[in-house]
Amino acid sequence: MADFNQKVICLLTDFGLKGQHYVASIKGVILKINPDINIIDITHNITPFSIIEASYILKATYKHFPEESIFINVVDPGVGSSREILAIKTLSKHYLIGPNNGIFSGNFAKDIDECIEIQNDDFFNKPISNTFHGRDIMAPVAAHLISGISFKKFGPKFNIKNLKGIPFTFKINNEKRIIQCIIQYIDSFGNATTNIPMDNNKIHNSEITLNEGKEIIIEIKEKTFKGFFNLNFSSVPVGSLLFLVGSTGFLEISINQGNASKKLGLKLGDNTTIKL
Amino acid sequence: MADFNQKVICLLTDFGLKGQHYVASIKGVILKINPDINIIDITHNITPFSIIEASYILKATYKHFPEESIFINVVDPGVGSSREILAIKTLSKHYLIGPNNGIFSGNFAKDIDECIEIQNDDFFNKPISNTFHGRDIMAPVAAHLISGISFKKFGPKFNIKNLKGIPFTFKINNEKRIIQCIIQYIDSFGNATTNIPMDNNKIHNSEITLNEGKEIIIEIKEKTFKGFFNLNFSSVPVGSLLFLVGSTGFLEISINQGNASKKLGLKLGDNTTIKL
Amino acid sequence: MADFNQKVICLLTDFGLKGQHYVASIKGVILKINPDINIIDITHNITPFSIIEASYILKATYKHFPEESIFINVVDPGVGSSREILAIKTLSKHYLIGPNNGIFSGNFAKDIDECIEIQNDDFFNKPISNTFHGRDIMAPVAAHLISGISFKKFGPKFNIKNLKGIPFTFKINNEKRIIQCIIQYIDSFGNATTNIPMDNNKIHNSEITLNEGKEIIIEIKEKTFKGFFNLNFSSVPVGSLLFLVGSTGFLEISINQGNASKKLGLKLGDNTTIKL
Repeated sequence: MADFNQKVICLLTDFGLKGQHYVASIKGVILKINPDINIIDITHNITPFSIIEASYILKATYKHFPEESIFINVVDPGVGSSREILAIKTLSKHYLIGPNNGIFSGNFAKDIDECIEIQNDDFFNKPISNTFHGRDIMAPVAAHLISGISFKKFGPKFNIKNLKGIPFTFKINNEKRIIQCIIQYIDSFGNATTNIPMDNNKIHNSEITLNEGKEIIIEIKEKTFKGFFNLNFSSVPVGSLLFLVGSTGFLEISINQGNASKKLGLKLGDNTTIKL
Repeated sequence: MADFNQKVICLLTDFGLKGQHYVASIKGVILKINPDINIIDITHNITPFSIIEASYILKATYKHFPEESIFINVVDPGVGSSREILAIKTLSKHYLIGPNNGIFSGNFAKDIDECIEIQNDDFFNKPISNTFHGRDIMAPVAAHLISGISFKKFGPKFNIKNLKGIPFTFKINNEKRIIQCIIQYIDSFGNATTNIPMDNNKIHNSEITLNEGKEIIIEIKEKTFKGFFNLNFSSVPVGSLLFLVGSTGFLEISINQGNASKKLGLKLGDNTTIKL
Repeated sequence: MADFNQKVICLLTDFGLKGQHYVASIKGVILKINPDINIIDITHNITPFSIIEASYILKATYKHFPEESIFINVVDPGVGSSREILAIKTLSKHYLIGPNNGIFSGNFAKDIDECIEIQNDDFFNKPISNTFHGRDIMAPVAAHLISGISFKKFGPKFNIKNLKGIPFTFKINNEKRIIQCIIQYIDSFGNATTNIPMDNNKIHNSEITLNEGKEIIIEIKEKTFKGFFNLNFSSVPVGSLLFLVGSTGFLEISINQGNASKKLGLKLGDNTTIKL
């Protein structure tokens, strides 16, 4: 195989199955500018308009990709309004493009190197529609950026103090060993990912370490469930509730070969209380 | 990045989620012939057997792709019958491959440069199955065509007078300002795309221009709804009905952050009446 | 187009729509190791934990791909348990990677050239999670293997006598012309694929040949249905039950432009009886 060193643009949207052709249009626009780009789908099945979920998925995936990869994020309920479209260069040397609607809030702040507001319409796909800036603005900007146009050419510096946030409950009571948290993702198997960050068995930035087999109680909408902390699914019998460190580094609520979210009545964005 | 100039083959099918591996077989056949082709999914979620929808999606996407890109269209309820398999070269320099079942009807006629019937089985994948001509005929023909085999080698000229049509209501009464149309697409958000073509605010080939804020009435199955023409979703309150020019250039019926098709009871192929 | 000769890695999982980002992480890990790999999705919509279905889909697709292509199979309910992760080199010159849980059972045996157990953690993505060996073990091993690392470097030889099997009913009574079989796949259209292998019109390894138009009776859960053997869908009226040789070479139960599985009440893994 010859050495080619293909560059990567990743797409993350809430277009869903019936919007797969919108994604295709974005890909067409990119390939027309540079046919040698490798375009990868992160997901197009974000719950429509859910910025919490989109932000989680972006955080969970981007560092797995090669340096210089660009991520286009089109979860954009405010399309056509005055919300800014941003481009971020991270310290990890990835590029993130998307509307300033909360998707870049929270932990991203620590990884931002530079941030600009995309304004230079020399690089847009004309005529610009009012309803599809993913295709007409973000896609061509990403294709030009990856093809060598300088980051600063696309618009003026954006002050990251003006990055929009999202409401995001997370409180630890170290003494009572109670954690308030939210469900930031539910996967196809019904595994529910909290926003409790783990360093292996230890809860990040806390004194609390969980031992294999430790009992954990979870309160959801006034109901209480009991499970055990374990390192993997097969440590507990089929059908049992367990808490484990998910593959994205957060505490996850699961049932071995079962659907935890259905059984516990969990929904995306739900507030829950974990008692250790 | 070295200059490689990768060629593109695009796939459009109604295979759905449980047919993703049929798509994979098509990709395998293509890559076995030429491993350097970039294969892009337009969509595989066409409503099963819906030629109206497939034709709309193809029209809405192909011109966004680089010249020389090939589009394989496998919405093919007549597979194994005597329907012809066609290859079209467009004036826009794209290639379209698919059965003669209506998918190439309507506006395509204006963009057709040459049309042949695919017959030369030197380029087929043998043994040819009776139920999967996408994999056994269309895929290898596309791979050989993009790799340099001359268009005319695949079969004899096909007279485009014999292109199959699809029923497609579209009547404007300029005086009464009433339009009969159909719903040719409904996306994941419930946005319903009519077949009324727009040149920005003006209805194509008519005297009628719509001004921002204009009231529009829509009649569906004897029910009547009222909304306003707007340039983007966020011009109206969340939950309001609006009419806008969709990103594919047709008049679209939407609800800001809501599901218009569910609320209005719209289905793919429905006849509707728009009063301006 | 320059000659580049891109290598292919294929992915087959049960991650589903809400797990599309897990797939993306696998792709990121691969591209970080070698950006020039062409990654193809076989399917991510395997029924969760269904090894029967995964095994069928792998068998139905891999030989369509170029030699040297690698297939990563992540249908892995035993992740984190002591089940081995295997790499197989086939006589057809493809590579198959996945857990030893039955996915490589049945007909694969005839095509296996070499089999190793993946153990060399020099090639793993660290830290290794307990719940996602597809990303942390299988993906980087595949990327290194395709980039030139020798097959034997990844672990010791594995005795294929220890390959796990799956229960798989298939009995022919040649005299009474009765076949016991199971449903190993149901596609988006409701076509149900049995595990009866066909050599064109002849049942493989039997005396039985089916003629066009032959009546066939199928018994499912004490109900009986009648249809006809045909070469393609359009040989029978819309809505009629037919039996045909599916595009993967097995006898398939279908309704022309209808949903056979819904009408007959067929489910994945069902035992059925075919009377000829």
